[in-house]
Amino acid sequence: MDDLQQYARTMAGGARQAALQLAESTGDQRNAWLLRVAELLGTERESLSEANRQDIERAPEHGLTDAAVDRLRLTDDRIDGMVTSLHEVVELPDPVGEVFESNQRPNGLLVTRVRVPLGVVFFIFESRPNVTVDAAALCVKSGNAVILRGGKEAIHSNRALHALLDRAAGDCGLPRGAAQLVETTDRAVVGEFLGMGDLIDVTIPRGGKSLIQRVADEATMPVIKHFDGICHVYVDGAADLEMAGRIVVDSKCQRPGVCNAAETLLVDRRVADTFLPGVAEMLIEQGVTLRGCDETRQLVPEAEVADEQDFRTEYLDLLLSVRVVDGLEAAVHHIREFGSGHTETIVTSDPETSRRFTRSVDSSAVMVNASTRFNDGGEFGLGAEIGISTDRFHARGPCGLKELTSYKYVVHGTGQLKSD
Amino acid sequence: MDDLQQYARTMAGGARQAALQLAESTGDQRNAWLLRVAELLGTERESLSEANRQDIERAPEHGLTDAAVDRLRLTDDRIDGMVTSLHEVVELPDPVGEVFESNQRPNGLLVTRVRVPLGVVFFIFESRPNVTVDAAALCVKSGNAVILRGGKEAIHSNRALHALLDRAAGDCGLPRGAAQLVETTDRAVVGEFLGMGDLIDVTIPRGGKSLIQRVADEATMPVIKHFDGICHVYVDGAADLEMAGRIVVDSKCQRPGVCNAAETLLVDRRVADTFLPGVAEMLIEQGVTLRGCDETRQLVPEAEVADEQDFRTEYLDLLLSVRVVDGLEAAVHHIREFGSGHTETIVTSDPETSRRFTRSVDSSAVMVNASTRFNDGGEFGLGAEIGISTDRFHARGPCGLKELTSYKYVVHGTGQLKSD
Repeated sequence: MDDLQQYARTMAGGARQAALQLAESTGDQRNAWLLRVAELLGTERESLSEANRQDIERAPEHGLTDAAVDRLRLTDDRIDGMVTSLHEVVELPDPVGEVFESNQRPNGLLVTRVRVPLGVVFFIFESRPNVTVDAAALCVKSGNAVILRGGKEAIHSNRALHALLDRAAGDCGLPRGAAQLVETTDRAVVGEFLGMGDLIDVTIPRGGKSLIQRVADEATMPVIKHFDGICHVYVDGAADLEMAGRIVVDSKCQRPGVCNAAETLLVDRRVADTFLPGVAEMLIEQGVTLRGCDETRQLVPEAEVADEQDFRTEYLDLLLSVRVVDGLEAAVHHIREFGSGHTETIVTSDPETSRRFTRSVDSSAVMVNASTRFNDGGEFGLGAEIGISTDRFHARGPCGLKELTSYKYVVHGTGQLKSD
Repeated sequence: MDDLQQYARTMAGGARQAALQLAESTGDQRNAWLLRVAELLGTERESLSEANRQDIERAPEHGLTDAAVDRLRLTDDRIDGMVTSLHEVVELPDPVGEVFESNQRPNGLLVTRVRVPLGVVFFIFESRPNVTVDAAALCVKSGNAVILRGGKEAIHSNRALHALLDRAAGDCGLPRGAAQLVETTDRAVVGEFLGMGDLIDVTIPRGGKSLIQRVADEATMPVIKHFDGICHVYVDGAADLEMAGRIVVDSKCQRPGVCNAAETLLVDRRVADTFLPGVAEMLIEQGVTLRGCDETRQLVPEAEVADEQDFRTEYLDLLLSVRVVDGLEAAVHHIREFGSGHTETIVTSDPETSRRFTRSVDSSAVMVNASTRFNDGGEFGLGAEIGISTDRFHARGPCGLKELTSYKYVVHGTGQLKSD
């Protein structure tokens, strides 16, 4: 066993041990840890800023864009945000031990399903250091041990943050293995962890598509993930067109670089000529470049040509594909062909049409008359999220505390026998 | 692409298409199919028996044991059992479209979680032909298309049964791809299907450990499975010893060849001398061979020596390992070391002890004062089961209709924007 493998196995083994203890800890203990972390974030602000400064200084060595440097920055506001977030997670109900089904059988057996932690979570993320604390908070609150692997460009910030997580564990009687940080920036260590399906229960990668693909290919344990967010807004013939315009602009422009931003606008032919020129004007005003089908370009001369590849692309930018379609069926067909199963919205005032859309479109979130940007754990009432899944197994859509749990059957009898 | 790959891909593609249609079918349509299958099992009894006779005649070629030949036999009673089973599944509530969570957000968004089918199920099983119909019933009722791969020793029976499933689909307007049978007995075809993670959503293998291991190793999609059922009964110092004796005998003897039968008895040292000789006598009377630790053998001279390997073995036979342990903690420790996470029972009259047991033992079912044999979908009120999972992801314990589903978020708004 080489050093890197040894390093990973020791850390994963520590997490496994910690997970056993966490599964038996009380919700109060885990909340005390969250509150202590929040407290330390306040008192250790200086040292955090200093560590973050080192990352920022080294950012040019990593070739970071201005936007990436901005994401890396641990400002006072962001530290305050982390503290608020921790307090919000404290307020969420403890998922561990929740009896969410109970069923008395004719023979008297009381059959219950009880929520238990998944166990050990391997969480891989990129440069935003606030994610370190958010993810650890969700994992530990739900009774899981977490192994955190952040980007090398944030290593000093993450070390400083992890020191607080670890100190809080010691202060609150939780195992030190509850939240561990992978301190080596050697990329090969990720492969070592991904091979440890015997010790790690789930891997959650957050970042670019190539990272996710690598994790999906190599992981020997289940993965909670999504590749793409190629999200659609379909404006139906029966839509309130003013509302439709606002929803399209919000879905595209409110924050174009995130997975639940819209990438494609589908417009029912019945309203294309009344709707498209106006919405195009609003979008162009927001700096959006449009790429459209032939019909779109007849109505919107500023639009560039959209080819099939455009409809398959997650722009994550101020770019929008536009296609005129022949009503609901054609819209559903386009989404099935080009969508990524993330988020789709219909704008329509006809309940039967929206019913057909929500039934036929099979995405993690299917929305009616609302911005695609709402597909988010906070917005859905989960309190917070560790990621969004577009898989069909285990959890789908935003994943919060419940989605970080499994369950077991706990059955109480009075001497029941099968042979009775 | 060779012929086998072509064969598998065509079948999986057909299943994918069928799954799209099934997801939009009504519960009434799917129930009509179940009832039509039940009807055809009655009217086509002759041809089924004839097909089954061919399998029975060829059984010696496959080197089947008497027990295996018995499992293969499609008697009138068993056909009646299949019909009853189908009627029971019809009576179960339709899981598809169930809104199981609903949450109105402060901004007015109505966020719901709606149950949807998983999609395409690849089901691999061994010789019992009745499983063919049971599995198809559960999959199709829950809106999934299923690809059935039975053992080669049951191929004629399975072909005859599948002909009925397929005819019923035609009669009821469901797609013919709803339930397909792999007609080739070439084992390599299984590998082809396991490689089709793009078309198949979940594989469920039922059979021997080597089959399950092969599937787990090769599958490119999620797998619902368990390897072993090394189930424990722990008789606590505070147990009603008469009840304990009955539970031990039932857990071991009621049907020793199944996964939820007990393989190891753990006895609290405080009651070993009063409990063990009596229960040993009862077990030996039932033909059970005991293998015990040193302390057990002092109390039960008939017991053979149990070594560590015994505690790791799923006997599936009239054999029982016995170990005297130093109370609850030691019992939990033994179970963590040697258990398979399937089913464990404690017999105790002390509520605090049972509470600690159910909290500390992490198995798919943890029971108090009841036989291990109850870890079963029917007994737990699921109506029927397609298998038992010992994994922590997606579903754990017996898997019925709900466990064959995923969900999507369906969100209704009135024009909400993220930028509001």
